[in-house]
Amino acid sequence: MTNMNVNVLLEKAEVLIEALPYIQRFNGKIIVVKYGGSAMLDESLKRQVIQDVALLKLVGLKPVIVHGGGKEISRWVEKTGMEPEFVKGFRKTDAETMEIVEMVLNKVNKSLVQLALEIGVNAVGISGKDAGLLNVSKKTADGEDIGFVGDVKKTNPQIIYDLLEKDFLPIICPVGMDDEFNSYNINADDAACAIAEALSAEKLAFLTDIEGVYKNPNDPKTLISELKIDDAKKLIADGYIGGGMLPKLNNCIDAIEQGVSRVHILDGRIPHCLLLEFFTNRGIGTAILGEDEEYYN
Amino acid sequence: MTNMNVNVLLEKAEVLIEALPYIQRFNGKIIVVKYGGSAMLDESLKRQVIQDVALLKLVGLKPVIVHGGGKEISRWVEKTGMEPEFVKGFRKTDAETMEIVEMVLNKVNKSLVQLALEIGVNAVGISGKDAGLLNVSKKTADGEDIGFVGDVKKTNPQIIYDLLEKDFLPIICPVGMDDEFNSYNINADDAACAIAEALSAEKLAFLTDIEGVYKNPNDPKTLISELKIDDAKKLIADGYIGGGMLPKLNNCIDAIEQGVSRVHILDGRIPHCLLLEFFTNRGIGTAILGEDEEYYN
Amino acid sequence: MTNMNVNVLLEKAEVLIEALPYIQRFNGKIIVVKYGGSAMLDESLKRQVIQDVALLKLVGLKPVIVHGGGKEISRWVEKTGMEPEFVKGFRKTDAETMEIVEMVLNKVNKSLVQLALEIGVNAVGISGKDAGLLNVSKKTADGEDIGFVGDVKKTNPQIIYDLLEKDFLPIICPVGMDDEFNSYNINADDAACAIAEALSAEKLAFLTDIEGVYKNPNDPKTLISELKIDDAKKLIADGYIGGGMLPKLNNCIDAIEQGVSRVHILDGRIPHCLLLEFFTNRGIGTAILGEDEEYYN
Amino acid sequence: MTNMNVNVLLEKAEVLIEALPYIQRFNGKIIVVKYGGSAMLDESLKRQVIQDVALLKLVGLKPVIVHGGGKEISRWVEKTGMEPEFVKGFRKTDAETMEIVEMVLNKVNKSLVQLALEIGVNAVGISGKDAGLLNVSKKTADGEDIGFVGDVKKTNPQIIYDLLEKDFLPIICPVGMDDEFNSYNINADDAACAIAEALSAEKLAFLTDIEGVYKNPNDPKTLISELKIDDAKKLIADGYIGGGMLPKLNNCIDAIEQGVSRVHILDGRIPHCLLLEFFTNRGIGTAILGEDEEYYN
Amino acid sequence: MTNMNVNVLLEKAEVLIEALPYIQRFNGKIIVVKYGGSAMLDESLKRQVIQDVALLKLVGLKPVIVHGGGKEISRWVEKTGMEPEFVKGFRKTDAETMEIVEMVLNKVNKSLVQLALEIGVNAVGISGKDAGLLNVSKKTADGEDIGFVGDVKKTNPQIIYDLLEKDFLPIICPVGMDDEFNSYNINADDAACAIAEALSAEKLAFLTDIEGVYKNPNDPKTLISELKIDDAKKLIADGYIGGGMLPKLNNCIDAIEQGVSRVHILDGRIPHCLLLEFFTNRGIGTAILGEDEEYYN
Amino acid sequence: MTNMNVNVLLEKAEVLIEALPYIQRFNGKIIVVKYGGSAMLDESLKRQVIQDVALLKLVGLKPVIVHGGGKEISRWVEKTGMEPEFVKGFRKTDAETMEIVEMVLNKVNKSLVQLALEIGVNAVGISGKDAGLLNVSKKTADGEDIGFVGDVKKTNPQIIYDLLEKDFLPIICPVGMDDEFNSYNINADDAACAIAEALSAEKLAFLTDIEGVYKNPNDPKTLISELKIDDAKKLIADGYIGGGMLPKLNNCIDAIEQGVSRVHILDGRIPHCLLLEFFTNRGIGTAILGEDEEYYN
Repeated sequence: MTNMNVNVLLEKAEVLIEALPYIQRFNGKIIVVKYGGSAMLDESLKRQVIQDVALLKLVGLKPVIVHGGGKEISRWVEKTGMEPEFVKGFRKTDAETMEIVEMVLNKVNKSLVQLALEIGVNAVGISGKDAGLLNVSKKTADGEDIGFVGDVKKTNPQIIYDLLEKDFLPIICPVGMDDEFNSYNINADDAACAIAEALSAEKLAFLTDIEGVYKNPNDPKTLISELKIDDAKKLIADGYIGGGMLPKLNNCIDAIEQGVSRVHILDGRIPHCLLLEFFTNRGIGTAILGEDEEYYN
Repeated sequence: MTNMNVNVLLEKAEVLIEALPYIQRFNGKIIVVKYGGSAMLDESLKRQVIQDVALLKLVGLKPVIVHGGGKEISRWVEKTGMEPEFVKGFRKTDAETMEIVEMVLNKVNKSLVQLALEIGVNAVGISGKDAGLLNVSKKTADGEDIGFVGDVKKTNPQIIYDLLEKDFLPIICPVGMDDEFNSYNINADDAACAIAEALSAEKLAFLTDIEGVYKNPNDPKTLISELKIDDAKKLIADGYIGGGMLPKLNNCIDAIEQGVSRVHILDGRIPHCLLLEFFTNRGIGTAILGEDEEYYN
Repeated sequence: MTNMNVNVLLEKAEVLIEALPYIQRFNGKIIVVKYGGSAMLDESLKRQVIQDVALLKLVGLKPVIVHGGGKEISRWVEKTGMEPEFVKGFRKTDAETMEIVEMVLNKVNKSLVQLALEIGVNAVGISGKDAGLLNVSKKTADGEDIGFVGDVKKTNPQIIYDLLEKDFLPIICPVGMDDEFNSYNINADDAACAIAEALSAEKLAFLTDIEGVYKNPNDPKTLISELKIDDAKKLIADGYIGGGMLPKLNNCIDAIEQGVSRVHILDGRIPHCLLLEFFTNRGIGTAILGEDEEYYN
Repeated sequence: MTNMNVNVLLEKAEVLIEALPYIQRFNGKIIVVKYGGSAMLDESLKRQVIQDVALLKLVGLKPVIVHGGGKEISRWVEKTGMEPEFVKGFRKTDAETMEIVEMVLNKVNKSLVQLALEIGVNAVGISGKDAGLLNVSKKTADGEDIGFVGDVKKTNPQIIYDLLEKDFLPIICPVGMDDEFNSYNINADDAACAIAEALSAEKLAFLTDIEGVYKNPNDPKTLISELKIDDAKKLIADGYIGGGMLPKLNNCIDAIEQGVSRVHILDGRIPHCLLLEFFTNRGIGTAILGEDEEYYN
Repeated sequence: MTNMNVNVLLEKAEVLIEALPYIQRFNGKIIVVKYGGSAMLDESLKRQVIQDVALLKLVGLKPVIVHGGGKEISRWVEKTGMEPEFVKGFRKTDAETMEIVEMVLNKVNKSLVQLALEIGVNAVGISGKDAGLLNVSKKTADGEDIGFVGDVKKTNPQIIYDLLEKDFLPIICPVGMDDEFNSYNINADDAACAIAEALSAEKLAFLTDIEGVYKNPNDPKTLISELKIDDAKKLIADGYIGGGMLPKLNNCIDAIEQGVSRVHILDGRIPHCLLLEFFTNRGIGTAILGEDEEYYN
Repeated sequence: MTNMNVNVLLEKAEVLIEALPYIQRFNGKIIVVKYGGSAMLDESLKRQVIQDVALLKLVGLKPVIVHGGGKEISRWVEKTGMEPEFVKGFRKTDAETMEIVEMVLNKVNKSLVQLALEIGVNAVGISGKDAGLLNVSKKTADGEDIGFVGDVKKTNPQIIYDLLEKDFLPIICPVGMDDEFNSYNINADDAACAIAEALSAEKLAFLTDIEGVYKNPNDPKTLISELKIDDAKKLIADGYIGGGMLPKLNNCIDAIEQGVSRVHILDGRIPHCLLLEFFTNRGIGTAILGEDEEYYN
């Protein structure tokens, strides 16, 4: 055997020796993946994400997908002759719009089910209305009425436990009901967060369009690989975090405080970002962890 | 105690004595209810049907609902500026129409889930795509291409067994996939029939706009209460059956031959038709049964 | 369908809608029926009582029968040339009489088993001696020795749980043993009460020769449908209750305080009194319930 | 340690080494004991028999007692002013006599339960009517009507399995019912035989007033310790067997042919005859065994 | 039957009546037997000990053997040209000697497995290293280094529970490891004691070359049959106990205080000493028991 | 993120995507590893082998180790003053030599247990004598008596199933017994083969000092990656296979024919050869597979 060959083999062996303990550690653990953004628009990335989730399931983890559907909703709102309207970043959702929101989200939901089945994973798509999964209260935007937009008030995760026990991949769209059984639109990040908390998930991963949290947003070399929540809070307090990252990081902190072990912010545009983040020491994005959790590296 | 009171009590006791053995006989048995037609348009009837299903579940039966959504689909097709088109009774379903069909059926599906939860039954809505429940082949209308309309080719009912085991009420909309994972619209009667067969259901009940099968369609007094399949076949052969009843009765015969014990054709406009049919000796519609099944009365 | 028919059907449906939630609520619950008095002497009533019990069992309740045998005992005492003797309402029971009491009660016991089997219920008859079910101490009648008459001191209900688990109908005759393993006669009401308490029964029903408790014993219209124990105690304290109803009502209060949910005093002469009491809103007799239980109507 | 002591110890050890493999071999096995005759009349023997049964149960066997009551029945028949009457060895049993037979057998039954509980064994007494255990057809004595005397036609042993599973000692009195649910008296040997067969018992032991089967009935030294059924049939055919032993031996042969492994005829007057027969190599009575069973010694 | 025969039978019955309750009492209980000394050198005694253990297992006890190997070790040390060396009664065990100790103990271990299999018991031999059973710390002899001799520090008995659950006879040799995974020799009495404690054994029996504990060591008639630990401590405090019995009795006291119910010191030279001690009232050696345990006789 | 980084990540992802399906495919499967040769002498390789086995176990496979001990046996034979003697490649094993063989193999066995525990795997070492695992018949070398050398005749693998069920790593040394319970030395390759067959193992891997099977032994480039048994037989028939590879390849063919899915011949000198062979498409040695198995690449 040539030396070159031996080196290639050793490198392969090292990747495996690095990955195997993670695979074993996460065996049987629940992993919630919030799937949205660019990774959802590019068909090739979409397939890679679902393939990663399939592999996670294959080796014994219990993934759960929560997805959004933003751009597709706007397209259909327009198609039926209405004008999308936003108030402080929230879609103003009157009864008629809500009907379309629900129809589109369920369509996206079933298309992900379809892709998963095609790849060979036994998926079941449900909405937050099924089995009373997501119970909401009406949200307001700084006091302004924005219609049927909801904040998750209570979660009944039994249906997810049941689907996982029966070895299905649950795919969930963020629609819920209030106490009077009216339908509400929910922000997908919020829904993923609430579900991960209700399941005491081992991990919650956000597939986004950014690599992770930077110490200095202007210097890509300052990507933070692992971040304890006290440090995350300090970063926020010190004003280092801005834009869309702020609510996301607050969601992360909230999830950790509600019992999720680790929350990952990943660049969904990197192929196989889930495998790389979960099964390598370094990871590729930012992992937020509790104060009493141990760093991996 | 006055005599009148005693008589009222005795009548009550008799209803119970009549019903209790049925309740026990059907304990743990799967009952598929095809829900469509007028019973679906009238809000009060809708509530009564779901309430009946809730009571069936309450006393130990395992109901499964399969629903259609005909008129609502046409409304949305028009809303998006298209023209509904039918060929030999089938909706011509191009890709764009199919997208709307699926969206509308899922919307109807979730609205039934909503109603069931309101009444207190833990329902989960799925489509025939979930967990590969309904696998179809393309249907043609006497050779003419009618697009994405499917015939059920194979059924994978595991997801229904799992939901029933976990004590949920499964509510199913008739969308399926072919072997290339394309979406198809399925006739709701056909879907209900395929599902009842796959589950070897104790009963399959069609909620329709007619009282049942008549010996003489012009004489309401000739409603047939119980009908063995050989007699049903003879009625068809002798030309007594026509109109929309013909495919329905063929569906019934098919279901019986595939292992369903009894198929019921009920007038969904009669309040609480399901309770009356299942828990009284006479019933109110027509029950089709196998040659070796025993008549109830 | 004629209007008359529709009305009859609606009434049937209403009886069912009224009954089904009770059937579900009592599913798997233990119901102790004290069976004695007139209902035991009339062969037609006897068959109706056992038929009711059979139906209760059929739809998932777990009935247990405790019976007496009063008049038959006296007949046999006389037959063997002895003179029945009563002290303050208690049968004076010397060793020889006790032998006959036990023989007769076991004979009655097996005749009820026989009837149940004939109706199709798998019954097993035991006495309070079997498996040490009823452990007694000697009773005295205001200080006077009345022989082998016992008060239940301790109950070992395991044999009943086992028979119920194995789906048998337990039929029990009120004979017990003291700590020295001597046989004792026990008042059937007392035995039923002790057994219901030991089983934390959902219900204890006394089949008697009276309709229930009246506010005014002279006015049948003042029958009390539901009575909380504090009110029952007040009725007693206020002197409204007399005769044979007094010890019975005291038994009821005792049973409620020991964990039975509801005690029913029923007129065993009304056909199917058990079904009517348990499965209709109004009931037909008097139900005694704990302070924190809810009224049904 | 003196030699004498050592010898005593060695003898003890040998008894144990002899007994232990039998104890293990019979672990969990069902042993039916027909208990009657002298052993039933002498209070001291009675206690020893029940004590033996208790020890069998203690070390893991599953004993079942079937008992008779002959002399006690006659006493009560006379007590109520009737005359016992026998036809060809069978008690002529009219309806009135049957009532007494059943009452007395149940009394004896409960007295054995009482003794077992006193010794510390959790016993339950049932009759062949309970749970339909013994189903009979009317017997005739060479054509002559002898009233309610029955031959066992069918056995439903579920109640015995259930009592054994729940760790009770079943004690059974030989009363049964015909297809019309009339009560019948059954010969206790026949009942024991039918029950042992229905249970595929490991052993059936008859406690009698004779040591066992002799080659030469006049020579006590010719007691046969083990006898295969072909040899038993030959003894009968050759006319060696007479008197009460003949029906008993026929019962034994029948039991073996119906699947009982070994039937033992024991002298119930020898103290602890059950222990000695079952746990020593030689045994003390006669064991009848199938052709393909192995001799123990 | 002659009187002599009857007497022999009665004696046999009495041995059984004496033994059966013990057999039942110890059913499923763990019995640790420390096997060493003369009983190990005489091939006939060796076979009797293993036969006794086999019978204990046969009737439902769960025996565990811990053995030593003293003289055989010395033989092999000499064979490889080394000189056995003892310090204050402990074998000085350098690395090379330890290698031989381990080899010899494993050889003895497998020879006992062999004998057990020959007798028909499914045995598995392990050392205290397997599954980390015995974790030790280095022992010193009054400060002097004696090499790889260990004191048991921690016990991981899972492997024994697993072997017992799977119905094997575990045979254990006293070798353990320290926290750095070095091998150590352990005194077999100490190892047996630690294992019995870890298993909360019902019994721990030491097979020795002495009959038991004497009140007066010079008078064999003063053998103590049962001794509570407070009395044992008093005997030690009063100086009655000396020689090799002192550490053994201390081991017994320790075992009782750590949860073993009874510790037996037996003369392994008496044939079948285990059966006689466990299954007769008197026993043959000395049983040490806790203060709150009851005497057997 | 730089391009270089992305490439490194993609390579990592590819190794994982390649490995994960194997990890899943082999989940819960039994893998027998024959461990011997150079890999056993070099302490660093020894640790890597045990570490690989640990990782296999970690991710859900069920490894079993069978080991030899050749050179260490000779060392001890000489140490006790004897002369190792070989006949046609087999060690001539008289009773005295057999004693040493057994002692040494058990010593090696416990040293592997020790190493596994150090690495964190819960190992239990047994010999083929334990629980009657390996039953042998005497082997002869072309008719010449070579003493206690055995051929495996029968395998009782229950103890291995039990240890695997309890999550232990079984480590086995190749000593067995004949029907008279004498000890025999067994060739480790033969023992591994017999054990893999008895367990219907998914895989049997031989760690050797050669890379695998070559088409042309003189050209390392002709290493065969996957070889169906018919081709293997042809290679033998055509005379391509010689030396030590011949019996090994015959062993492989035998194992496949007895139900092992794949047998691997690996170069134990390549670090982490087990991981590389099992979890990469190409593998690194030669896999022998059945005619109806599918190639991996």
